[in-house]
Amino acid sequence: MAAPGDDAPVPEHPAVPAPTAAGPLDDWLRDRRQRREEAGLRRRLRTLPGACVDLASNDYLGLSRDPRVVAAAREALDAHGTGSRASRLVTGTLGIHEVLERELCELTGQPAALAFSSGYAANTGVLTALGDADTLIVSDAHAHASLVDGARLSRSPVRIARHSDVAHVGRLLAKRSEERAAVVVESVYSVWGDHAPLVELAAVCRTENALLLVDEAHGIGVAGRGRGLVHEVGLAGAPHVAVTMTLSKALGAQGGAVLGSEALREHLVNTARPFIFDTALAPTSAAAATEAAQIIRTTPELTDRLHERARFVAETLDIAQARAAVQSVPVATPEAAVRAAEQLRARGIAVGCFRPPSVPDGISRLRITAPGNMELQELSDALTRIREVLAGLPGPELPAR
Amino acid sequence: MAAPGDDAPVPEHPAVPAPTAAGPLDDWLRDRRQRREEAGLRRRLRTLPGACVDLASNDYLGLSRDPRVVAAAREALDAHGTGSRASRLVTGTLGIHEVLERELCELTGQPAALAFSSGYAANTGVLTALGDADTLIVSDAHAHASLVDGARLSRSPVRIARHSDVAHVGRLLAKRSEERAAVVVESVYSVWGDHAPLVELAAVCRTENALLLVDEAHGIGVAGRGRGLVHEVGLAGAPHVAVTMTLSKALGAQGGAVLGSEALREHLVNTARPFIFDTALAPTSAAAATEAAQIIRTTPELTDRLHERARFVAETLDIAQARAAVQSVPVATPEAAVRAAEQLRARGIAVGCFRPPSVPDGISRLRITAPGNMELQELSDALTRIREVLAGLPGPELPAR
Ligand SMILES: Cc1ncc(COP(=O)(O)O)c(C=O)c1O
Ligand SMILES: Cc1ncc(COP(=O)(O)O)c(C=O)c1O
Repeated sequence: MAAPGDDAPVPEHPAVPAPTAAGPLDDWLRDRRQRREEAGLRRRLRTLPGACVDLASNDYLGLSRDPRVVAAAREALDAHGTGSRASRLVTGTLGIHEVLERELCELTGQPAALAFSSGYAANTGVLTALGDADTLIVSDAHAHASLVDGARLSRSPVRIARHSDVAHVGRLLAKRSEERAAVVVESVYSVWGDHAPLVELAAVCRTENALLLVDEAHGIGVAGRGRGLVHEVGLAGAPHVAVTMTLSKALGAQGGAVLGSEALREHLVNTARPFIFDTALAPTSAAAATEAAQIIRTTPELTDRLHERARFVAETLDIAQARAAVQSVPVATPEAAVRAAEQLRARGIAVGCFRPPSVPDGISRLRITAPGNMELQELSDALTRIREVLAGLPGPELPAR
Repeated sequence: MAAPGDDAPVPEHPAVPAPTAAGPLDDWLRDRRQRREEAGLRRRLRTLPGACVDLASNDYLGLSRDPRVVAAAREALDAHGTGSRASRLVTGTLGIHEVLERELCELTGQPAALAFSSGYAANTGVLTALGDADTLIVSDAHAHASLVDGARLSRSPVRIARHSDVAHVGRLLAKRSEERAAVVVESVYSVWGDHAPLVELAAVCRTENALLLVDEAHGIGVAGRGRGLVHEVGLAGAPHVAVTMTLSKALGAQGGAVLGSEALREHLVNTARPFIFDTALAPTSAAAATEAAQIIRTTPELTDRLHERARFVAETLDIAQARAAVQSVPVATPEAAVRAAEQLRARGIAVGCFRPPSVPDGISRLRITAPGNMELQELSDALTRIREVLAGLPGPELPAR
């Protein structure tokens, strides 16, 4: 088949050619797909049904539907329209971006903040801006994909430290030949729900003249009565600690931010490619996140309720409670996890599913979050149905957590 | 100074330590800042003043404030709240994401689409998903930062082709040892405003069994009466051509998308890390972009008006008209460009500034876009003031374009 447009005159409305076999790319795509199927790891997009109990979201405090947050977004929509229309460095910086950054500083106790269009962009942005051939990046083995990608993009030498192993981090820093170094961790890890040993890590970083970069994606709104784990352990504003966060989980919006010193912010504005060459965060998202941050800061009880619900989930399902929003139930195989999630979906309950390659230990899990504003009766009913489905799972005993 | 939290008990509200000199990182940040200042390349964030004529935005058709687009966003806000609350693969896929993807297919004539949280993420996503050690990426010398970052992240061998040099692309493809290959270009380049030779590139890619990946960031809403350059030249749906786009320029919202075959979409859902490990696009942005795409598809006159305004800008400022939304005026030095932009800002006119390292040829420029819905009288007044400022610029004659 001749490729359309090869030499024919351009028609007014060119017909869309029917998909055809197209040589190596298609063969390769088909081959990859078959491999995923054989491994039982094919992922499909499923639309969230309107009427369902959502125990799978990262909207840990239910703020994405809080009337105050929605009202703030509506106001921004009326004032600024649906987009920010340019990079922050051209004319994309609106007053609401600055208000957002100030509010994020208030919430986290950091001196300066810079908003990005996603948490992913914040992580790749800060790492590419700080990394170079003379900066060693020591990355925790459980670090999120966006941190891994940022480290790779930075062209820095990268070493992987064993998960939350402070002594290992110390050794990697001590024996480095690079002048600078950054240690990259999360504050609260999403799969295990464990906390990073931030105080010890910060001490090692101080001794070894390294920066500690902490991703608080699952810490903000959850630890430190909402203000994050860095704040809780007294490291907010420490000059050798920088923080990243997302606006799309507990803050219920979209976007991300890097928090730290004014000098760091200035450096990012000038060098972080995913900031410079990216359209500014949409006005609605900026305004919603601002309002959500303020609610979290002024209503620490919201976070308390999240942990109460987490305890209820853990007790009802007989699992150890994670000090996190997400509670997880180990399941024997990826297939069993997917099947259980599908059975629950059919009963009107959405739960998440952790499975390879998104788990650090190969153990598949159901992933359950009960937002801080969920009614206890609704949660209790849902947990009853989850227990039924778990009890009916075939295969070996559940592995211990 | 002892780092807070090192061993003291955690206070209820830890005081934020005053910023202090913090060793190598701070020294390094200061050194970098000084180098930028010496090179005259320091970038600062400036807030867009409320009352100004904005000739710097990428909202090429003015749709970010179109009442229909704003209404669509408001409806999504009421129906879904301010965030999508999870990754697309967990419970983040809402009906509006699917409607958006169908509408983008309609607009561009492509068989399948996958939405991302930004155009940057779409570009890094598709390249990391397609690249590997056995896939050569041939990237145009003027390709956008996000394409460069995507190629780097993919771990593919990368070769840079001379700008829009089809023969060079052909040679690089022909002599490759890798089995697969992808050629990465933009349809309409932002700085020069030139069009890629897509028909010739597609022919070479067909012959050499390579994929042609076209970033239509500046093509959608601009070329092909709004449907993009790929559609205009009859390549929409061609099996060896894939497209990326942003929702944040002519569509006036935020987000991005990859368009191509169903097999490509399925592959991205399973392997594109900036898709899998990222929160789904905010409901307001998805709904706004859907409405904007529909308006562009059904109102090709909108795009015609954009080009009329572009002609008016080019004629008034005596520059060659680019077949693009952005018209640019060469200025002798980066400092002169910045100074002119500041003088214009003081007169209530926002224009953009292209300068190193964001220009492919080292020539600094004023960057001027007149949205398709701008009143001609307002534009004319603004251009008069721009001419005044340009006439007063010190330094050598403007270089020829
Ligand atoms: C630890 C961590 N960091 C970063 C991100 C990315 O944030 P965003 O979804 O805003 O891109 C996520 C999840 O989405 C995450 O879990
Ligand atoms: C050519 C090109 N590709 C991609 C992007 C990134 O799109 P977004 O701003 O939606 O991230 C931009 C500009 O922002 C661009 O100019």
